[in-house]
Amino acid sequence: MGLLPSWVESANAPDCDFPLNNLALGVFDAGNGPRCGVAIGDRIADATGLEGAGLLDLGAPLLAHPSWNALMAAGPAIWAAFRDQMTDLLRQAASKRDRVAPHLHPMAGATLQMPFTVTEFTDFYAGRHHATNVGTMFRGADNALPANWLHIPIGYNGRASSVVVSGTPIRRPWGQVKGPDESAPRFAPSARFDFELELGAIVGQSSTGPVTVAQAQDMIFGYVLLNDWSARDIQAWEYQPLGPFQSKATATTISPWIVMRTALDPFRAPPPARETPLLPHLADAGHDFHDIALSVTLTPEHGTPQTIASTNTRELYYSPAQQLAHHTTSGCPMRVGDLLGSGTISGPTPDSRGSMLELSWGGQTPVTVNGTPRAFLHDGDTITFHGAAIAPDHRIGFGACAGTVLPAHPNPYAP
Amino acid sequence: MGLLPSWVESANAPDCDFPLNNLALGVFDAGNGPRCGVAIGDRIADATGLEGAGLLDLGAPLLAHPSWNALMAAGPAIWAAFRDQMTDLLRQAASKRDRVAPHLHPMAGATLQMPFTVTEFTDFYAGRHHATNVGTMFRGADNALPANWLHIPIGYNGRASSVVVSGTPIRRPWGQVKGPDESAPRFAPSARFDFELELGAIVGQSSTGPVTVAQAQDMIFGYVLLNDWSARDIQAWEYQPLGPFQSKATATTISPWIVMRTALDPFRAPPPARETPLLPHLADAGHDFHDIALSVTLTPEHGTPQTIASTNTRELYYSPAQQLAHHTTSGCPMRVGDLLGSGTISGPTPDSRGSMLELSWGGQTPVTVNGTPRAFLHDGDTITFHGAAIAPDHRIGFGACAGTVLPAHPNPYAP
Repeated sequence: MGLLPSWVESANAPDCDFPLNNLALGVFDAGNGPRCGVAIGDRIADATGLEGAGLLDLGAPLLAHPSWNALMAAGPAIWAAFRDQMTDLLRQAASKRDRVAPHLHPMAGATLQMPFTVTEFTDFYAGRHHATNVGTMFRGADNALPANWLHIPIGYNGRASSVVVSGTPIRRPWGQVKGPDESAPRFAPSARFDFELELGAIVGQSSTGPVTVAQAQDMIFGYVLLNDWSARDIQAWEYQPLGPFQSKATATTISPWIVMRTALDPFRAPPPARETPLLPHLADAGHDFHDIALSVTLTPEHGTPQTIASTNTRELYYSPAQQLAHHTTSGCPMRVGDLLGSGTISGPTPDSRGSMLELSWGGQTPVTVNGTPRAFLHDGDTITFHGAAIAPDHRIGFGACAGTVLPAHPNPYAP
Repeated sequence: MGLLPSWVESANAPDCDFPLNNLALGVFDAGNGPRCGVAIGDRIADATGLEGAGLLDLGAPLLAHPSWNALMAAGPAIWAAFRDQMTDLLRQAASKRDRVAPHLHPMAGATLQMPFTVTEFTDFYAGRHHATNVGTMFRGADNALPANWLHIPIGYNGRASSVVVSGTPIRRPWGQVKGPDESAPRFAPSARFDFELELGAIVGQSSTGPVTVAQAQDMIFGYVLLNDWSARDIQAWEYQPLGPFQSKATATTISPWIVMRTALDPFRAPPPARETPLLPHLADAGHDFHDIALSVTLTPEHGTPQTIASTNTRELYYSPAQQLAHHTTSGCPMRVGDLLGSGTISGPTPDSRGSMLELSWGGQTPVTVNGTPRAFLHDGDTITFHGAAIAPDHRIGFGACAGTVLPAHPNPYAP
């Protein structure tokens, strides 16, 4: 499918993240309080206002509260109706253009907030290169992948309360750490603070029992970019035997724009080659991977932006639908607003690794940023992710997913 | 403190779980829909009705919705006012007895529902005997406790959507399993389904940064008994390297009655001896352990109830307040309604172990139940926990925390 031209001219530029084909969803404040908005070019269409004016009719008021959860809960038929109506309002020959125009606001002047309420957050480990890199560092190349890894999408429950929207400053955490040469642990600010480049999938329909991969695909409402900030030194000390906990609980940043699943349908990609067949309940359903280019930029406090990694969601070994299907095998109920992080998406080459841990190989081979070698994140660093599915004449983008590291507070437990 | 006599005579029996000293909180339905209720003897006082009739004045209507979350959010001063007013309405010489009496309902005729909305669920591993037993089985006696265990309360995030109230049937889950002698994993019903005897702590106040153990104690609203149902075969295959996931996601059962923290103040216990000192931020605050006797009863489908374990919350190495303080060290925000499971509470003797895994030592030394040896749970088994803090003339009890294991469904993924 080619570009769908819009009367909002800026949406028709080939390098714009938000053409009419996208219709990404956010919550914005342009001075009149938070409202549901749809990105179109360099503007935000006030969807709450369009609904209030009767220009958008979803059968019930779904956009009165500044969150997209109510639309999600309304189900796939309403998701489709919403896209059809928005497309009709914003296409080049739109008949209601004059009535819609007053509901557009410049994106540059708006504050973006959390686009939905996160019900529960799960983080997977579905990128093979990442799992192999980390496993090699921790256990040696011969035992890099855990025995279960090629059979199930390994994941753990994260902390929904710590999910924040792009732009929120990230405070370097304290935690209990113990170096290999230290005789006892100590409580200190993390010295190995890191990012993780992930794709987040948003569950838009609930379930009460096991679902198939095909059913799981239909339950996914949309996607965000996701940075699972990680304190590697806290993680190393705490993660055995029950997994990461406080090392991953400081914050997880998501992009402010939800890209709906159906906007990415033209960018489906085949599943990866399977070294060993998946059991039938996790078998590839054929249409649940996507081709989305990703990049990571590091901007030092007084420096200039430098791209330090580029990769693609095709590097995932398990699709979000496979992650979700596995999540339900035990009967675990899923709910509207559940967020599934993919795990770090690294590619096969050194410049396609999605974390400082991998880029600097545990600190052994520092990355040069603005001429300075560095292993992990410094105070003042800004990490920005970009992601887009790219067609010849347009792209489906997520906008920026960014966060700046603030210095640790003084010891919160000092007497 | 001795028994506070109530005009509800059944509340004055020394073996009653619900004397006036307790005032445990639940949500009940006696035929008029779900309402907030307070257990008193063999009755339930309709707190929603008492508030509606003006007999309970909390400054704002906090009990209109069938959940105790709004009272929690109102804070400790309101918690205390609520207890004072309820005590005044139910004490032996209560002046408003005639106006209160119509709001009492027989507990036997009421259905009990979830007493609060679980925001997020975290499960700890704070019982030393349990950690030692499991570690010995998995890694040998010399490496039983992980290196970090004596320094931090190890925990992992669980799944709030799977928390259910006592009485809810528990469906045996399917999952991916692989025995040590099998060459490949298979998808099968769990053959090693188990319970875990825990104490649950309910967070009643939010936090945005690190809190001390003393502050954490004040944030805890109350406690429930908690059964973290566990599929040991699924757990063994999935838990490396990121911890338990689907093995713990089928269900977690809680007792229907919340015992408020202040009701347990007279039953405080000293902390355990510390083999190695805790770092200052986790140091014992002196008043956050309790003396609560616990028991586990197994009732086979066509059999009679048999007590298979008895222990005490004093066996915890980390108090709920220490668990909560650790939970916040990274800056992790905590919210009203967060639920913290303590981890399995086992005692030092074979008959004080809080899971079948430990009671049968991984299946090697089956327990005899109704004359039959058994390693893990059978279909039709009912597991019931009881717990109470016991004084000479009264007890502060939780009521029963029970669940019956139903047979697995047919393969949910069969073509």
